[in-house]
Amino acid sequence: LGYAGVYYHRDPELFYRRLSEPERRALMQRLRGLYQTIVLEYFQSPETANARIDELVALAFFADIGAAQLLELHMGLMEDFAKQLKLEGRSEEILLDYRITLIDVMAHLSEMYRRSIPKPAPRDP
Amino acid sequence: LGYAGVYYHRDPELFYRRLSEPERRALMQRLRGLYQTIVLEYFQSPETANARIDELVALAFFADIGAAQLLELHMGLMEDFAKQLKLEGRSEEILLDYRITLIDVMAHLSEMYRRSIPKPAPRDP
Repeated sequence: LGYAGVYYHRDPELFYRRLSEPERRALMQRLRGLYQTIVLEYFQSPETANARIDELVALAFFADIGAAQLLELHMGLMEDFAKQLKLEGRSEEILLDYRITLIDVMAHLSEMYRRSIPKPAPRDP
Repeated sequence: LGYAGVYYHRDPELFYRRLSEPERRALMQRLRGLYQTIVLEYFQSPETANARIDELVALAFFADIGAAQLLELHMGLMEDFAKQLKLEGRSEEILLDYRITLIDVMAHLSEMYRRSIPKPAPRDP
């Protein structure tokens, strides 16, 4: 994370809440696709997962996506996985491990936001 | 979370990295105490836990504590709990549930930082 002190100029027109319905759906679909890849590669291929985490975090940041939306993404994916595992007659226990993946992605997103708060200017009281 | 759009003026003199060694230790001790209460009350008394989460998040925010430090706090506490459970001959499985607590606290901290990024001024290109 080498972007300490950099203040990104985000375009509020690109914020999720300003997007049209079809644009929102397209964005969420990209985020969901990335998050699914992250989850599937997380323990098998950490390098791939890390690159995708950076991608997802940047995408989320510029759209001002919050932790709650990331959590929803996670829950939706876990539900899908649970159904799949049930169909295959396998235990859902593995899904607990993916909480670690969520914690990692959320930590990265949180750091992105924390480091984007501009330093107080000397004129501040 | 009703503080959208409020821009907090933080005093960088109070940031963790600017504190003296004894001040750092005192701050981490307060955070650790709060986090322990949160974990212990999380499933039993959500209201108490939520009040403590707000307290911890505010304390962390004004000290510019990041997600990585929160994660360390969690891991340290889980290690202590694991030792205790081992001594008592009990399973460590319950510790997996506390990942949910960490996710919740991290989400709150992340939102605090996200909402503290000032909106771009109209003068921005």
